[in-house]
Amino acid sequence: MNKKILHLGTSNSKLPESGPFIDELKKLGDFTIIRNGEQLSGDERAELIRDCHILLTMWGSAPVPDAIARDRGKLEYICNITGEMTRWISLDLIDSGVPVTNWGDAPADAVAEAAMTLLLQAVKDVRPQNKHMEQGGWRLVEGVNRGLVKGLPIGIYGMGAIGRRFVELIRPFGAELLVYDPFVTELPEGCERADSLEALFDRSLAIVIHAGLTAQTRGTVTADLLARLPDHAIVINTARGAIIDQDALFAELESGRLRAGLDVLAGSDSLEPGHPARDWSNVSMTAHSLDIINWNLPRLLRREEICLENIRRHLNGEPLRFVMSRERYLLST
Amino acid sequence: MNKKILHLGTSNSKLPESGPFIDELKKLGDFTIIRNGEQLSGDERAELIRDCHILLTMWGSAPVPDAIARDRGKLEYICNITGEMTRWISLDLIDSGVPVTNWGDAPADAVAEAAMTLLLQAVKDVRPQNKHMEQGGWRLVEGVNRGLVKGLPIGIYGMGAIGRRFVELIRPFGAELLVYDPFVTELPEGCERADSLEALFDRSLAIVIHAGLTAQTRGTVTADLLARLPDHAIVINTARGAIIDQDALFAELESGRLRAGLDVLAGSDSLEPGHPARDWSNVSMTAHSLDIINWNLPRLLRREEICLENIRRHLNGEPLRFVMSRERYLLST
Repeated sequence: MNKKILHLGTSNSKLPESGPFIDELKKLGDFTIIRNGEQLSGDERAELIRDCHILLTMWGSAPVPDAIARDRGKLEYICNITGEMTRWISLDLIDSGVPVTNWGDAPADAVAEAAMTLLLQAVKDVRPQNKHMEQGGWRLVEGVNRGLVKGLPIGIYGMGAIGRRFVELIRPFGAELLVYDPFVTELPEGCERADSLEALFDRSLAIVIHAGLTAQTRGTVTADLLARLPDHAIVINTARGAIIDQDALFAELESGRLRAGLDVLAGSDSLEPGHPARDWSNVSMTAHSLDIINWNLPRLLRREEICLENIRRHLNGEPLRFVMSRERYLLST
Repeated sequence: MNKKILHLGTSNSKLPESGPFIDELKKLGDFTIIRNGEQLSGDERAELIRDCHILLTMWGSAPVPDAIARDRGKLEYICNITGEMTRWISLDLIDSGVPVTNWGDAPADAVAEAAMTLLLQAVKDVRPQNKHMEQGGWRLVEGVNRGLVKGLPIGIYGMGAIGRRFVELIRPFGAELLVYDPFVTELPEGCERADSLEALFDRSLAIVIHAGLTAQTRGTVTADLLARLPDHAIVINTARGAIIDQDALFAELESGRLRAGLDVLAGSDSLEPGHPARDWSNVSMTAHSLDIINWNLPRLLRREEICLENIRRHLNGEPLRFVMSRERYLLST
């Protein structure tokens, strides 16, 4: 008998309407998509969920009612296709023992490539050169600070799946890699440990943030730490904006003392139309979009492959990958 | 007895006045710098050169008279600190048998990093995003083509020292690497050979040029080859502009069909102030400057290290590195 697979979304659900991923899901079971979850009561949502075996959640999912933690009916497994989950999956559900998985290392390739992109753009001071050319100039020499990644002391804040991929990508460049991550006991080969953020910032000419946003990391890149960086040092953030004291960083950028590549910003992750930072050529801001891939797409996205693999594992009674523990949930967005 | 080391430069000589490199040269012999070589007759220059054991040449050197090929006096060795040499060292001198060396793989790090920078900027479509933000927008979605380097079919034209360094840098990204270089018998691991430029362009979404400019490569990236690339494909050139039919490439860029990162241009390697290409956001032009490093400089540049190593080797009677043959000279700038 086919298992029932349900996606209980809202009108904002980011699950595609059709395509290879949906085709593959239909091969694995009796697959239903609901896209008006916000119009259903908690009881109605709970009833739908209790009648399915596998629940798919992702951006734009309707919240899973806490009642499922007490009585899950037929529900065997919640497969969260993305990383973010706390807005639709409660801690009660995790504690109830229903297995919940997420996308694991799916975003690592795209985010690590994004960080490499912004780091190289900053190290080679490309944006001032691009602007100089737009304005009728040619080779920009005055005030340009172009370095080699080879030999550059780079401080990496956070060594999860994305940080590890970043280290793989940058390793052949021959930079000096220093890492701060108090939660990780074993660092990748060739990385040296910094025992504090102070030590990381004291010794780096470029800081690359690969930490998650948690109570432990929020606002930890302070004015004091930024002041420890020498002139023209670089801050790259493709993680979460709120990890940095943004007012302090913007003050250092406005004065021209530091450089940055920021895919993410604090607060609403955007900037008002007239904000002066838009014209600072020592920062490249990419509007939390560098990891969104729409060119030369593979048939299945990595997160879709991981979802399908985990459903197959569940159906075959094999161990799931990327199962959420209480500890990991509390570090999640 | 100390050997006499001479740099016979003009007022344009790029040899530094002082600093660690000059200090190291002074330790190796009786070192003299002349910076008014353009005011000396050929006979005067020949007399000075015949009285030294080692001649240092580089950008801004006075031409070595052909008379040295017939009678070199005490001269034992010409150490050309840079790559370019044909403007001050004639084929007669090479044929005369006096050993001449150049900077070997010294520029490989900087040029390969420059190519990676422009490739990532193009693959992630950073410049349209930067411009959109300058103009008051935020996240740019329409018309943006962002890809992953992972899995991207990249065609590399030319596999010398710079091409090999580029392959080292890009290898962990997991791109599909295809190479056209008819002069190279063994390709780096993981690279597939294309038997023609047509085959290279037929199968690639990004072309990266690492060939030298010679009679065999000039103008070889033709309108026909460019037309073989699919829409939004990328052309990266950090080698020499004249390898590309620039009119053909500019037509593809003006129409918006292709994208490019061009550190070099054909002809004078510059663009008139009002040229429309300055506003095309699908091309990043960096004015032959991305490989000029002035931030976080090492104590000695790689070319300086190679020069010092070769002088030491000569003094110790050991084999020199990067000795010019007639064949390599004829492929040089």
